[in-house]
Amino acid sequence: MSKTHTFPEDRVHYTWEKDPQPVLTIDSGDQVDFFTREVADDQFDENSTTKDIETLDWARVYPLAGPVEIRGAQPGDTLEVEMVDLVTGSWGWMSILPGLGLLPDEFPDAYLRIFDLSDGEFIHFTDTIKVPITPFLGTMGVGPEKAEGQVIMPPGTFGGNMDTRHLTVGTKLYLPVQVAGAMFSCGDAHAAQGDGEVCVSAVECSAHASLKFRLIKGKTIPAPQFQTAGALTPKVDHKGFYGTTGVGPDLMEASRDAIRAMVEHISSTYALDPKDAYLLSSACVDLKISEIVDAGQYIVSALLPLAVFHE
Amino acid sequence: MSKTHTFPEDRVHYTWEKDPQPVLTIDSGDQVDFFTREVADDQFDENSTTKDIETLDWARVYPLAGPVEIRGAQPGDTLEVEMVDLVTGSWGWMSILPGLGLLPDEFPDAYLRIFDLSDGEFIHFTDTIKVPITPFLGTMGVGPEKAEGQVIMPPGTFGGNMDTRHLTVGTKLYLPVQVAGAMFSCGDAHAAQGDGEVCVSAVECSAHASLKFRLIKGKTIPAPQFQTAGALTPKVDHKGFYGTTGVGPDLMEASRDAIRAMVEHISSTYALDPKDAYLLSSACVDLKISEIVDAGQYIVSALLPLAVFHE
Repeated sequence: MSKTHTFPEDRVHYTWEKDPQPVLTIDSGDQVDFFTREVADDQFDENSTTKDIETLDWARVYPLAGPVEIRGAQPGDTLEVEMVDLVTGSWGWMSILPGLGLLPDEFPDAYLRIFDLSDGEFIHFTDTIKVPITPFLGTMGVGPEKAEGQVIMPPGTFGGNMDTRHLTVGTKLYLPVQVAGAMFSCGDAHAAQGDGEVCVSAVECSAHASLKFRLIKGKTIPAPQFQTAGALTPKVDHKGFYGTTGVGPDLMEASRDAIRAMVEHISSTYALDPKDAYLLSSACVDLKISEIVDAGQYIVSALLPLAVFHE
Repeated sequence: MSKTHTFPEDRVHYTWEKDPQPVLTIDSGDQVDFFTREVADDQFDENSTTKDIETLDWARVYPLAGPVEIRGAQPGDTLEVEMVDLVTGSWGWMSILPGLGLLPDEFPDAYLRIFDLSDGEFIHFTDTIKVPITPFLGTMGVGPEKAEGQVIMPPGTFGGNMDTRHLTVGTKLYLPVQVAGAMFSCGDAHAAQGDGEVCVSAVECSAHASLKFRLIKGKTIPAPQFQTAGALTPKVDHKGFYGTTGVGPDLMEASRDAIRAMVEHISSTYALDPKDAYLLSSACVDLKISEIVDAGQYIVSALLPLAVFHE
């Protein structure tokens, strides 16, 4: 018979370790209810301003709830994590952090914005721009093999800071188990994010997350996989999308070109400051690889859902 | 008053040239009905087999209908091309061409498949796998500046062989005019394609295409842009998607890893030969950049629409 566990709110870790002590041990089939702190570990609050970025203690970024040990899990198995429920806290933040993001040269200055999420439906970006709240956990991973004080920010084949927007309610995530007991941890909830997370932050928030775990013995996958319950962007599919492109021999540069063009398009079309257009791109614009095979010239498209613009 | 023109079926060109003679000259606001040959210029037919790839004359690949001169267009303007109607021919082909595609090492051998498109609704990939017909022109471009015998395959900021799947009926494409008169050409229709076109061919076919042109004087864009009329994948959104991922410091390698995992997933889950799983990926799997900002480790996801699988 499967059980539902409540993960203790005060147990977080800030690095991946080789032989972590599990906080909770569960069986395959069990559910765990987590509260996850926003990714800056409560160093920001609803009254924070850009100035607070200066004093950010990076050692406290990425507080993860975990690890959870799954009995019987061994390297080579696959762990299924089903997103049963995800509810954001009442506020969130986005930022430009100097030196980070896809366009660090164009946006060298720090910038912080706070958003009210209390209506549960929309992020009120401006009076007329509303991004639907579509929460997921930016970071979910099993314990990486050979980890030792491994920082959380880069993801890996173990998952981790995947920042993959489609891991919303109803999606099942599959992670390749790398250490005995799997040692799952999670955190870094996002109220909304586009494919790419181009400015380096999504709409960062705390969350309550109910996750159900199932161990698949003997099934081995090379990197995370997932299955969604339905359409990928159902909350914005009722209107069209505006696409910009980058064309060239390097996918990273093509991505930069596509986002540069999108920031210009948004700021000129909707009279937004470029910094806010960059944030909005990170919150809801999707990067796609339109073609990757044509004689060394590739196309990356950035797609803006027009449904976020209201009269 | 706007006019509708019929482009002559026998006028094609196989390279981009610097000072092309227009076949047709139109005004902004006019519509042109094109018939476009399949991309191999009738070197394949409904009875072709893999053996016919050996004798393919590459100089005849990419027959483009054009150029169409738009009166008054000058470099620095933008040409809007609205997809008014797109209807495929009654059959199509897909192929693996040695040395090309995203996974040339895994798939070194030529392979050709012919598909019946005559029901107008589905590409019958197998008895139980049906990919919705969602046509677009793989190649649409204005005349590139400084072109001289320029091969069609690589796209550029002028558009060209964009292979961008969202340029379907109702979408408006915006191209940056680079030469006087714009000198638009098109061809290379696809009955279906996923973002990426990973095996190097989509479902290649002939098409009737009705396109409406509008000149936007004085608006300059750096590369193609487009606006869709609605959702991006409406024909497959009623079921979920299965995602595989590639994680690493190089977007090209991450894309390869994601598609390798997808080919393995499709072939093992649906008992398909890996070659056919690769073709199916090219026909309907979408490559997305899930994150591009996390400490040098990026994630590319490949998304398979489950709606293509029927009982």
